[in-house]
Amino acid sequence: MHVLITGAAGFLGQRLTRTLLERGEVNGKVLTRLTLIDQVAPVPPSDDTVRLDCRAMDITRPGALDSLLGERPEAIYHLAAVVSAAAEADLDLGMTVNFDATRSLLEGCRAAGLAETRLIMASSVAVYGGELPDTLDDMTALTPQSSYGTQKAMCELLINDYSRRGLVDGCVLRLPTIVVRPGKPNAAASSFASSILREPLNGEAAVCPVPTDLDLFVMSPGRVIDALLHAATLPGEALAPYRSVMLPGLTVSVAAMLEVLREVGGEEALARVSHEPDPRIEAIVASWPARFETRRAERLGFAGDRDFHEIVRTFIAEQTAS
Amino acid sequence: MHVLITGAAGFLGQRLTRTLLERGEVNGKVLTRLTLIDQVAPVPPSDDTVRLDCRAMDITRPGALDSLLGERPEAIYHLAAVVSAAAEADLDLGMTVNFDATRSLLEGCRAAGLAETRLIMASSVAVYGGELPDTLDDMTALTPQSSYGTQKAMCELLINDYSRRGLVDGCVLRLPTIVVRPGKPNAAASSFASSILREPLNGEAAVCPVPTDLDLFVMSPGRVIDALLHAATLPGEALAPYRSVMLPGLTVSVAAMLEVLREVGGEEALARVSHEPDPRIEAIVASWPARFETRRAERLGFAGDRDFHEIVRTFIAEQTAS
Repeated sequence: MHVLITGAAGFLGQRLTRTLLERGEVNGKVLTRLTLIDQVAPVPPSDDTVRLDCRAMDITRPGALDSLLGERPEAIYHLAAVVSAAAEADLDLGMTVNFDATRSLLEGCRAAGLAETRLIMASSVAVYGGELPDTLDDMTALTPQSSYGTQKAMCELLINDYSRRGLVDGCVLRLPTIVVRPGKPNAAASSFASSILREPLNGEAAVCPVPTDLDLFVMSPGRVIDALLHAATLPGEALAPYRSVMLPGLTVSVAAMLEVLREVGGEEALARVSHEPDPRIEAIVASWPARFETRRAERLGFAGDRDFHEIVRTFIAEQTAS
Repeated sequence: MHVLITGAAGFLGQRLTRTLLERGEVNGKVLTRLTLIDQVAPVPPSDDTVRLDCRAMDITRPGALDSLLGERPEAIYHLAAVVSAAAEADLDLGMTVNFDATRSLLEGCRAAGLAETRLIMASSVAVYGGELPDTLDDMTALTPQSSYGTQKAMCELLINDYSRRGLVDGCVLRLPTIVVRPGKPNAAASSFASSILREPLNGEAAVCPVPTDLDLFVMSPGRVIDALLHAATLPGEALAPYRSVMLPGLTVSVAAMLEVLREVGGEEALARVSHEPDPRIEAIVASWPARFETRRAERLGFAGDRDFHEIVRTFIAEQTAS
């Protein structure tokens, strides 16, 4: 089994790589080859059982991926993207990276005849927005209120059409906000959702830019990786007629997240969070819905986190182990 | 008021041109200039009150529209498109004409600073498809099962994002199947819906390629033109946060349409319709839903036809008058 990952140097890409190598198989087939690409070459993980190919590549260059696709990867994880706040700040950059590169990837699959290749794209809760019902499901209209959400929604449509036409075997996972991400803050509008836990637990200060009564729809990194791996195992017929799935996140308010921080890290941890409203961040994040009926995802075998305590405890355990 | 129409040589474009010239105003402003473009130069209507500019233009050529947009039209009707069956037969053609040309138009508006220009795009019931609820509304997910529907849905997202960013003042009308279209059959999968009335009423034979129990969601040409004109009068705030509107069509079965044909044209008219199933046509048309809750459109002032008899009687009266 040859797996290709775009955006492999990113947080999800690195963790997916590590987990793939640990498991050594995908959908019952032995993992024999892993191609990792990103703007900067991904650091090769130490592994001598798999043929590893780490490349720096600008996937926005038309045809950039064509020669790799000619080697017929059997699963492609398309994780490369410009995050929400950056796509909002620069429309052209977002369109080029988030939309045009995905279209090029699909065209490359079509040209290489990769009808049987499972193409898995990470989409986002940001495809939703505007005047929404209290609880959403996979049949709620995508009326995004950000350019990032717009670009992801366009990619979803295209992946579905190319799959329907039998040009590729696509699957789109709409990811909840991932909490708690390890590492540093990034340009995503949702970056604070990890910062307000990670930094205080590590003895550092963090800023909460949104009102604490704001609800988020969240999933832990571990459950997201599980979902990405599970997506490689589902037959196309199970996903048809529409191959976009909202993953089963947890609905949790910022206040409830901070309460778990207090319980786990104590008052001194909670005191490290200062509240500085940022209307630009709030406008984006508040447009994302937080309540979903995800029975379809569960029927397809995707699983979420049990509760927010578990998410935070797992984060601490993973940080200690690494 | 300067109005630009793409696809102006098409059926809707010609009728919109004629109606605009008859009314002489748009949204209370005197119509002073009309720019009509299409692949072949639209035939200039005889009118000496308005500055007319009829041009043959390939709008898929990047920047093709830029100099025209530099003249700052105040309303743009973007009607140019490759129809459903043609877009299904040729993915590249559909993507280029239906999607890329719309994106170029938006980019042209952005470059020319046309933030106040009302851009009206004709979309379609074909943006819906797959496993749908019995009755749809504007919050039902777009899960198209045709490349035409996919391309239109992508354009809708882009027009909404450019409008949200204040780069243009967009409005998307999702048109029901237009019945009865005058003239000749075309490559649209829905072409039969007009043929099975128009041809028999004119003493000619017609083929019905779908089962008669199939429901369609239809609107007369006159009501569609009224809607296009009304779309130029709505303030952007009334359309926000999402500027796509399904027009209030009529739900009617093919059998009910044929019954009206019999009542109006007699048994001899009905006998001119032969039934030859075409699975390719049926697959596309049957994927389009036929029941909509369109209160939002009605609240915005869009009006539909009273009943199918009225649609057929109006067609006959217009044909006699022309």
